[in-house]
Amino acid sequence: MFKLIRKIEDLNSWHASNSKAIGLVPTMGNLHVGHLSLVNKSLNENSVTLVTIFVNPKQFGPNEDFAEYPRTLERDCELLKEELDKFSGKELVVFAPASTDEIYPDGFSTIISVNGISEILCGADRPGHFDGVTTVVHRLFNISKASTAYFGQKDYQQVKVIQRMVLDMGLQIDIKTLPISRDEDGLARSSRNQYLTTEARQMALTLPKTLSQIEKLLTSDSWLNSGVEINKILETSLSDKRWNYLEIKDANNLNEVTPNTNKVVILGAFKVDKTRLIDNRLVKINYA
Amino acid sequence: MFKLIRKIEDLNSWHASNSKAIGLVPTMGNLHVGHLSLVNKSLNENSVTLVTIFVNPKQFGPNEDFAEYPRTLERDCELLKEELDKFSGKELVVFAPASTDEIYPDGFSTIISVNGISEILCGADRPGHFDGVTTVVHRLFNISKASTAYFGQKDYQQVKVIQRMVLDMGLQIDIKTLPISRDEDGLARSSRNQYLTTEARQMALTLPKTLSQIEKLLTSDSWLNSGVEINKILETSLSDKRWNYLEIKDANNLNEVTPNTNKVVILGAFKVDKTRLIDNRLVKINYA
Repeated sequence: MFKLIRKIEDLNSWHASNSKAIGLVPTMGNLHVGHLSLVNKSLNENSVTLVTIFVNPKQFGPNEDFAEYPRTLERDCELLKEELDKFSGKELVVFAPASTDEIYPDGFSTIISVNGISEILCGADRPGHFDGVTTVVHRLFNISKASTAYFGQKDYQQVKVIQRMVLDMGLQIDIKTLPISRDEDGLARSSRNQYLTTEARQMALTLPKTLSQIEKLLTSDSWLNSGVEINKILETSLSDKRWNYLEIKDANNLNEVTPNTNKVVILGAFKVDKTRLIDNRLVKINYA
Repeated sequence: MFKLIRKIEDLNSWHASNSKAIGLVPTMGNLHVGHLSLVNKSLNENSVTLVTIFVNPKQFGPNEDFAEYPRTLERDCELLKEELDKFSGKELVVFAPASTDEIYPDGFSTIISVNGISEILCGADRPGHFDGVTTVVHRLFNISKASTAYFGQKDYQQVKVIQRMVLDMGLQIDIKTLPISRDEDGLARSSRNQYLTTEARQMALTLPKTLSQIEKLLTSDSWLNSGVEINKILETSLSDKRWNYLEIKDANNLNEVTPNTNKVVILGAFKVDKTRLIDNRLVKINYA
């Protein structure tokens, strides 16, 4: 069963007749294979999957791409129906607010912030971005009444910020993270990739390639000795203005890596022309 | 049935065996008749009442009375048992976190802010106070799993801020407000009243007396003509430094009063020695 809902009021009516556990996939639409892998997982694990499609103004900076961000609801619904067709007896509800007012009605004033972890990496480049994310995600958690929510690992910091909020506030929802989906050339799938010209895309591959290079050095038998080489890559990259950041952090909490760190994440943000792309790699540390 | 719980873990175990709707009375303890009227109401309306007792450090400013705030758990439990004894077949659970870490464990980073309404009146005098309130109240809503929460009208702005948060975030909880409980001399009941010497208490009565005076003028037949007199009271009061504020606001949203306002609230904060007291009066406007 497929259903498209455009108003919270209608979502609430639907809730009244639904008694099954709900899996939530919050998106900004313009769905790609990455999103669909989240939907597939949710369909697998829940009787009811709720996909939200909302381009959230609060998470865009004043000079960012809110206006241009691709809005393709009809095609998104087609893709979701195709995904649903792979299952039987499952229900998929799309909640695509008819307008921004539906989510942020007149007088809306609440902001949820997660200090510290929201202020580094993407948070440093995009002030207020994660406040916008946590505020809308929290709201979506509540109006969706979901028991599980699915996020992509591409937005690694986002997932960590949301997990912190869920833990701090004692929200009754499980957060599940799925691996990054990549195109054949290695670029992580993103709605923003379509902003890239063929030439720009070639340049964008610097991002996954550099992350892979560091990953290889970290997982090599002699990784303790690779430090010099890794630092050289970091230094060279950061002298290139296209890199917003390139960092190696404790994967658990995005703090600095310490001798107790057993898993690191290599995170990069790389700008080609006006398009800002992010990517990351998780690496387990095997101490010799 | 009466139960005292000191850890969230134990609260969660209790939740697992409870299937009844829960009424929540969040307090900072040192219970007085005002709190007990909230507990009484909740006992009346719910099979299970959860009273939380937690002196929340986040809602105190650095120079405020967090350290001195009276902590009287044993006596509070006695009073609650007495209240419970007025009912039969009801359950009252006290959740009094054993330590601050129970509510704010290591790494806690989330802050909930309600813009605008949090920044006026008490919010202007006590920067960050309402962020502390909304953060803890939201957390308590979640860990209590309550369907209704009871607050006193004395903290009128607090109730309005919380209502805004509940609305904005789509929280599934009813907020009920009960009238201000007063001592015989007219002073609103507050745990902070015990800081007052006999002399200071006499001085503190300026607060309820002034509010009553304005209320009388507003409800007089010729209230439109009382404007001059009201303004004189406001002016005189505000030239007296003991008044932190004395304002007449739209009771609905604490905005400025407009020709569409049908209910106003007169709010005052008055400081005697080091003790800051608040009070308010709700007044329906009957246009002639």
